[in-house]
Amino acid sequence: MQRQIDLELNKLRAVIMAMGQSVELAVEEATQGLIERKSERLKKVREHEDKINAFHLEVDEMCLKIIASQSPLAADLRMILAIIKINSDLERMGDQAMNISLNVRDYLEKTALQEASAIANMSHTVRKMVRDAMDAFIKGDVALSEQVLLQDDVVDEAKRSTFKNLVEVMKQNPNFVEGAVDLMLVSRNLERLGDHATNIAEDVIFASTGKDIRHGGFDPSSHR
Amino acid sequence: MQRQIDLELNKLRAVIMAMGQSVELAVEEATQGLIERKSERLKKVREHEDKINAFHLEVDEMCLKIIASQSPLAADLRMILAIIKINSDLERMGDQAMNISLNVRDYLEKTALQEASAIANMSHTVRKMVRDAMDAFIKGDVALSEQVLLQDDVVDEAKRSTFKNLVEVMKQNPNFVEGAVDLMLVSRNLERLGDHATNIAEDVIFASTGKDIRHGGFDPSSHR
Repeated sequence: MQRQIDLELNKLRAVIMAMGQSVELAVEEATQGLIERKSERLKKVREHEDKINAFHLEVDEMCLKIIASQSPLAADLRMILAIIKINSDLERMGDQAMNISLNVRDYLEKTALQEASAIANMSHTVRKMVRDAMDAFIKGDVALSEQVLLQDDVVDEAKRSTFKNLVEVMKQNPNFVEGAVDLMLVSRNLERLGDHATNIAEDVIFASTGKDIRHGGFDPSSHR
Repeated sequence: MQRQIDLELNKLRAVIMAMGQSVELAVEEATQGLIERKSERLKKVREHEDKINAFHLEVDEMCLKIIASQSPLAADLRMILAIIKINSDLERMGDQAMNISLNVRDYLEKTALQEASAIANMSHTVRKMVRDAMDAFIKGDVALSEQVLLQDDVVDEAKRSTFKNLVEVMKQNPNFVEGAVDLMLVSRNLERLGDHATNIAEDVIFASTGKDIRHGGFDPSSHR
C-alpha cells in the first residue's frame, strides 16, 4: 500500500524537476542570447525566472505542509530537508541566469570579443551539470551526483582561463575593457551556477545515503 | 512551564548567533587585510570560515533532530525552516568572505589603487547589515529586518559606482587592469554578502509574521 507521504513527496519531486528544467532553459536562453547576439532570447530568461520564483514559494509551502501533517522521520525527513535546500539553490540559479542576461544585454552593445566562444563551452558544461544533478535527484543516483562534483572542476578551470584571457584583452586594448568586464561577469555567474549544481549533487548524496559530504567529506581521489 | 522545544530552539538560536558573529568577523578580517595591506589578517578569515562550516553542519543536524523528536507546528516549524535557510545563507557568506580574502591576496601583489577606500565603506555597510539581520533574528524585530532591506540598496549603488570607476582606471592605464579586476571581484562579493543578509532579514520577517515577502512581497515605498 502506498503511504500518503509518498504521494506528497512524489508531487514535491515533480515540482522540483519542473523547476530544474526552467533553470536549465533560463541558462540556455541567457547564453544563447550572447552567442547568437540576439537580445530577444534574453526576454525568455525573465519568463523562466518568474516561473522559478513561483515554484520556489510553492515548494517551501508544500514542505511545510508535509512536515506539519505527516511528521516525517528518518529517510523521508532527510529527503524533505534536501528538497528545501535544492529549492533554495534552484531559486538562486534563476537569479544567476537573470544576472547573466543583464550582463549579456550590456555586452551586446559593445564590440564582439572572440572569448565569447569560451563562454559557450562553459554554458554547455554547466547545463549538463544541472541536468545531471536533477537526474541524480530523481533517481537517487549517488554515482551520477559524484560526476557532477567532478564536472565542477572543469567549470572552475574554464573560468580561470577565461579570466586570464580577458585580462590580456583589456591590457592590449582599452576599448575592449567594458565588453571584457561583461564577459568576466558572465563567466563568474556560470561558475556560481556550477557551484549550485554541486550543492544539489551533495544534497542528493545526503538524501540518498544520510552521509554529509559537505565541507571536505568528498574525496575525488577515491573516484575515477 | 517551559516547553522542551523552547529549550531546543534557544540552543539553536545561540549557535546561529555565534555563526553570524563569525561571518561578520571573517568579512572584517578580509577587508581590513585589503585596507591595511596586511596579508596576516587573511589567515584569520580561514579560521573563521572553518568555524562557520562546523556550525553549518551542527545547525542542520540540530534542526533535523528537533523536527524528528518534537514534531513542531505552526510558529515553531516556521522558525526552524527560517533557521535552515539562515544557516545556509551564513555558510555561503563564509564562502564569500573566503573569496574576498583570495581576491585581496592577489590584489596585495599589485599597485595599490585609490578605489580601495570605496571598498572599505562597502564593507562597513555590509557588516552593519549582517549585524542588524542577526539582531533582528534574535529579537524577532521586523522593523529592523526592513532596515536591512533598505541598506541593501546602498550597497548595490556603491558596487555600481565602484565598477564604473574601476572601468575608467583600467581604460586609462593597462598596468592597473589586474588590480582593478581584483577590486571588482571584492566589491561583487561584498554585494553578494549584502544579498545574503537581505535573505536573512526576509527569513526573519517570515518566521516572525508568517508573511513571505520574497519575490516582490516587500514594498519599500510603504516604509520610511
